[in-house]
Amino acid sequence: MRQRILVIGGLAAGPAAASKAKRTNRDADVVLFEQGEHISSGICEVPYFIGRSITDAEKLSPLNPLNFERTRGVKVHVLHRVEEIHPVQKKATVRDLYHNKTLQFEYDKLILATGSQAKAIGLAGEEARNVFHVKSLADGFAMKHFIDEEKPKHAVIIGGGYVAMEMCEAFGMQGMETTLLHRDDLPMSRLETESRKIVLEELVKNSIRFQARRIIKAFKTDATGKVTDVVTDAGSVPADLVLLAIGVAPNVELAKSVRAQLGSFGGVLTDQHQITSVDSIYAAGDCCEVKNLVNNRWMYAPLATYAARQGWTAGEHAAGGSAVFKGGIRAIAVKVFGIEVASVGLSSTEAEASGFHPVMDYIVGDSKISFYPGSEKIHIISIADKKSGRLIGANVAGGSGSVLRANILGVAIQQKMTMDEVSKLDLIYAPPFSPLWDPILTAAHQLRKQTGSVK
Amino acid sequence: MRQRILVIGGLAAGPAAASKAKRTNRDADVVLFEQGEHISSGICEVPYFIGRSITDAEKLSPLNPLNFERTRGVKVHVLHRVEEIHPVQKKATVRDLYHNKTLQFEYDKLILATGSQAKAIGLAGEEARNVFHVKSLADGFAMKHFIDEEKPKHAVIIGGGYVAMEMCEAFGMQGMETTLLHRDDLPMSRLETESRKIVLEELVKNSIRFQARRIIKAFKTDATGKVTDVVTDAGSVPADLVLLAIGVAPNVELAKSVRAQLGSFGGVLTDQHQITSVDSIYAAGDCCEVKNLVNNRWMYAPLATYAARQGWTAGEHAAGGSAVFKGGIRAIAVKVFGIEVASVGLSSTEAEASGFHPVMDYIVGDSKISFYPGSEKIHIISIADKKSGRLIGANVAGGSGSVLRANILGVAIQQKMTMDEVSKLDLIYAPPFSPLWDPILTAAHQLRKQTGSVK
Repeated sequence: MRQRILVIGGLAAGPAAASKAKRTNRDADVVLFEQGEHISSGICEVPYFIGRSITDAEKLSPLNPLNFERTRGVKVHVLHRVEEIHPVQKKATVRDLYHNKTLQFEYDKLILATGSQAKAIGLAGEEARNVFHVKSLADGFAMKHFIDEEKPKHAVIIGGGYVAMEMCEAFGMQGMETTLLHRDDLPMSRLETESRKIVLEELVKNSIRFQARRIIKAFKTDATGKVTDVVTDAGSVPADLVLLAIGVAPNVELAKSVRAQLGSFGGVLTDQHQITSVDSIYAAGDCCEVKNLVNNRWMYAPLATYAARQGWTAGEHAAGGSAVFKGGIRAIAVKVFGIEVASVGLSSTEAEASGFHPVMDYIVGDSKISFYPGSEKIHIISIADKKSGRLIGANVAGGSGSVLRANILGVAIQQKMTMDEVSKLDLIYAPPFSPLWDPILTAAHQLRKQTGSVK
Repeated sequence: MRQRILVIGGLAAGPAAASKAKRTNRDADVVLFEQGEHISSGICEVPYFIGRSITDAEKLSPLNPLNFERTRGVKVHVLHRVEEIHPVQKKATVRDLYHNKTLQFEYDKLILATGSQAKAIGLAGEEARNVFHVKSLADGFAMKHFIDEEKPKHAVIIGGGYVAMEMCEAFGMQGMETTLLHRDDLPMSRLETESRKIVLEELVKNSIRFQARRIIKAFKTDATGKVTDVVTDAGSVPADLVLLAIGVAPNVELAKSVRAQLGSFGGVLTDQHQITSVDSIYAAGDCCEVKNLVNNRWMYAPLATYAARQGWTAGEHAAGGSAVFKGGIRAIAVKVFGIEVASVGLSSTEAEASGFHPVMDYIVGDSKISFYPGSEKIHIISIADKKSGRLIGANVAGGSGSVLRANILGVAIQQKMTMDEVSKLDLIYAPPFSPLWDPILTAAHQLRKQTGSVK
């Protein structure tokens, strides 16, 4: 009998898993269920579509399920919700939402790719038609439509992480007066203080009104059901449009129903083949936690790169291959108006919490030789473990080239290089591209003085 | 008695060595000799000064010897030429060129930092006043003066390496009709064919007249002693200005006189402390060969980064420290008009010659997601050893971010990573900075298929 592999979820990890499974075992019967209408729609581009850096809506369009079927050989059922999984009988109960009937599917292997959802704030009014998330392409199109039709003047963003930063820029570029309400002193809680100050400065420079240490108390709505004001513990802010960007949480109802082991962040735990604690059930993408390669602990890092890699791994292994996904270093970046902000590895707080003895240094360097046209400042906060001398984390913020420099440090982190080794790297020098000592070398040279790695 | 360290040469490695020696041993008597008038003048910026990307001549100015003495505690003798070294008596005979008298200096340690010189072509007329090199700041100022005064219309560049490329851009930006005469089919012989084609395309696009496979036969001069035409084996090219950029050779007269061991490229060979084969004599900078960390063979790579590191190493070790310089991977880049061109590690030819079994792949990726404004093409030629699967070399050419991506591959080369490991690197994805799979990952993913590292 043909092997049957069921894949639940059609956004990122699911299609990756299904395609890879089919490529790995051409004889397998691979079936993908998606409760929505579309599959494989990218949401990372939504902020740039709202901000009009990307104007062609076609580019964001999801894959056509029929095309996907035809080109990948995967059977796709959109508008199908998997309601129950029976791990002993290896069966799934699936509701066809269009015909509203229930179907049974047997499986040899099942892959959970149920994704994540935007966190709710738990206040009346958050379902109003001018309150948005950026969690799906539909969210993006709805917000775009609302902005085009109703021309909101005052936007309020609640949050302060990566998506909030991207949306500050998107709204700012649309000429909206934008207020950012944040629970903490400085935006981007995961970054180091120096980076967060740089981000705040850039926001303020671009007329974003940052309100620190705000607790959201209520949404004031009008007769048409729109929010008109966001009420905080320190006064009210008028709002024609509200964006909630307080993070996402893994969708784990199905995983819970089969008693798959979850981690402390609420995501599914898997081995390196993406196999859960339940026989023949895999998980991949935003519903999972990810092993952090620096401290070997679980983290919740719902990134597109991990979703794709976990999907491939689950799909290939389920179909008989030997793929492995070991984890990541949370390599992440955001554009905040004119600057690049990137982070790789552990924060100093995470480092401390996971038993390292972090030492830090902050340097400012030049992206090119300082008197070459277009030279910009590059700020590097690097974090090492005092005892081993290993680089374990870094923030890079500033001009063009910050993100790619963060990647260089990211490779060093993944290779468990010491600051002494990083300081001796052979990096390119040429006036249009780097000063004689790239800021990375300056950072490493400084920080190694604080570690045990200097002879 | 105080330790005395003599340093010969004041351009890059010499001042680095002298400063570091003094910092390492505050009691040492450190003396630097330079036969010219200036010390520590940078020449890497000269092409950008000629091309007017850098307009402030002050920025190029050399260090004032008196300032250097005062701030570093090093005794500086400019216009002093070391004429003889007596390694048994540990003495140097030095000519004071200003007073034209001879002095004797005893030493405990001596550091040769005698640099390199532009290769001559060996034809009558190459000393004409409109024939230039780019080997010193004086060359740069002389050329700038000539261009400003005589407004040459036709420039001829003989060569085809990094300096020739920089000068094509510099002359092009001055509106000169520029002809590049090259001995080979394509410019930049050290790069792979695909990169060289990209470079040629960019030159042609910017109106540089490239003449391939040309042998220079003669310089035709006029009554005023200026070259008017460059005569090749395939016709004559009119020239108001000629630039000779056919490479540099190490200055090793003094090293030879003490019978220091030289390598096959004619440079001085040293150990990891920069000690030559002669007792108590060190060498650093362009007069030395450098150990290539990829194939563990000597190479001649007269780069500013190596000069500084070798200088520091020699200075520190001579003064009693334990510094080490292990070598480099020849990380190098050039801007050719609108594109970045970088090379790290071995070329396929070098790889073959040093016992590897090179396999190569060429990919074209996007610098950002393809539909994000400003996204540019990034071309990567990667070279791996088939047997070990190790990345051993790469060219990266194209849009903004090519050079920093070459550095990422450079770190992977230095860490002896396999293509499989490179393909699994956690690199940042964000639409304004990278596609979901950075071109580096695409390159690695492709090339690993040709190596033994895929399971």
